[in-house]
Amino acid sequence: MQQPMRIAVIGAGTIGASWTALFLAAGHEVAASDTATGAEARLREQVRANWDDLVALEIAQGSADNALARLSFHEDAAEAARAADIVQENTPERIDLKRDILARIESTLPPEALILSSTSGIMPSDLQRGMTHPERLVIGHPFNPPHLIPLVEVVGGSRTSSAAIEAAMRFYTGLGKQPIRVDREITGHVANRLQAALWREAVYLAAEGVASVGDIDRAMTAGIGIRWALMGPHLTFHLGGGAGGMAAFMENLGPAVESWWEDLGEASLDQPTRRAIIEGVEDETEGRCIDDLTRARNAALLRLLAVDRTV
Amino acid sequence: MQQPMRIAVIGAGTIGASWTALFLAAGHEVAASDTATGAEARLREQVRANWDDLVALEIAQGSADNALARLSFHEDAAEAARAADIVQENTPERIDLKRDILARIESTLPPEALILSSTSGIMPSDLQRGMTHPERLVIGHPFNPPHLIPLVEVVGGSRTSSAAIEAAMRFYTGLGKQPIRVDREITGHVANRLQAALWREAVYLAAEGVASVGDIDRAMTAGIGIRWALMGPHLTFHLGGGAGGMAAFMENLGPAVESWWEDLGEASLDQPTRRAIIEGVEDETEGRCIDDLTRARNAALLRLLAVDRTV
Repeated sequence: MQQPMRIAVIGAGTIGASWTALFLAAGHEVAASDTATGAEARLREQVRANWDDLVALEIAQGSADNALARLSFHEDAAEAARAADIVQENTPERIDLKRDILARIESTLPPEALILSSTSGIMPSDLQRGMTHPERLVIGHPFNPPHLIPLVEVVGGSRTSSAAIEAAMRFYTGLGKQPIRVDREITGHVANRLQAALWREAVYLAAEGVASVGDIDRAMTAGIGIRWALMGPHLTFHLGGGAGGMAAFMENLGPAVESWWEDLGEASLDQPTRRAIIEGVEDETEGRCIDDLTRARNAALLRLLAVDRTV
Repeated sequence: MQQPMRIAVIGAGTIGASWTALFLAAGHEVAASDTATGAEARLREQVRANWDDLVALEIAQGSADNALARLSFHEDAAEAARAADIVQENTPERIDLKRDILARIESTLPPEALILSSTSGIMPSDLQRGMTHPERLVIGHPFNPPHLIPLVEVVGGSRTSSAAIEAAMRFYTGLGKQPIRVDREITGHVANRLQAALWREAVYLAAEGVASVGDIDRAMTAGIGIRWALMGPHLTFHLGGGAGGMAAFMENLGPAVESWWEDLGEASLDQPTRRAIIEGVEDETEGRCIDDLTRARNAALLRLLAVDRTV
């Protein structure tokens, strides 16, 4: 259990609401800020919905009402940041906007407080430019929905201190997350690059008519996705090498893998490709709306996360 | 429930033993063949081990002994194929060997019987060359371990009849599998291409020192792998588009994805890279042996497969 802290959640959309529920579940006080009209009401409503998930996973205890008593809302980010121990920033993905917010936060934030950014697309070194205390800026990039998915990617910029990175790793681990340490800032961090690499081939195969969009998705859910929920790609191939492990895999299957790499396709999201993928998804979803799919996905996610996936 | 059939399992190593257990669980009679010394004893032993998994998943009922009474073993593939309704071929991945086996099978197999090949690397049109009845040759490529993983890739060659492909799809569906239809023969079919595309980026990131092998694997198991066990890549991005679905995703995030595609790395399995990956896996597995990891993986797989992952 972490010492109760005061955490500022700057940007209280879907990601911010997800973080807020998780921070409240861990016993922290949350000072949220968002400039959108009606943001506070929406935040409280979303935290209630997320709370039910967290109770189901035994991460949260007690009622949402009790927890929400520890949430305060501030239109001004500087007010939310006042006296905070940690900031989790989730504003829109625009560098000018984020730099402006960071300056306002730093005007009231204690100098030793940690600033964590949920950004998926902006490099930490770019965020640090102009900061008074750039050494405490760390990216903590979550995966949707952040209150449920354990992964957080932790990345520092050129001016981030190693103490700040260690503090970010400890903070997320203490929340029950599984943070990974990205040692070099790079577009897309790690997980989005892996996703993009796979999706490029998926789009290529669909565009070339090798299989339908639905069947390509099923190759994942009925096959490789099940294995990857338990073991990452390296460990999967380590087992694929038999008794000799990865060394045997490299020896026996390395040349085959390299020949597959050479054969992989290129894809571009031109109009015909977009149309093919969009129509393929329509066939796959058979008229189900996004809300229905999202509810069903979250319910399945709760069932999956309740299982011990430890290998 | 399928009508009980006589199925010839040609090549009774790990894959063959896995298929055998599944076919017996569905009530079929299995005639297995393998020329390796001690193959029959090993097959019976592996079927017993697989049987326990299938009982745990409520796919098999009754004792392994009762089921094994429906298994016969033949040194000669032609004898196993005699009077069979379906052949599942799992011999080593060598075209000359497989062609030779197919000729011997066809010498005794009824002409209307279906021949399914588990090959991952050989094109069906290459297997068909020289066959008496090439129209009944279909690839049914399973994923390890085949008695547990639902995915089977179904691919025909240039001379395969559509009736044979339909029959293969029906057969695997009837076994409780989730077959997908690959409409064009291509190296690696679908799933191994997707795996290879992702692993290329994973190897690149490890080789460049962006993250450790263990942390890259954790990006999968703690994050994207959990989601992919429920929804394939297209459906995942369909939800990522919000209320507008895939069309909105393409519009809003298409350019970002294309820029990520441009930024993805190249990898080669040269000696320094092999060493880095092998050492990274050693760090990740902390001295655990392959047997221990495999046991733990299979146990976790059984827990995962018992969950309703339907979205």
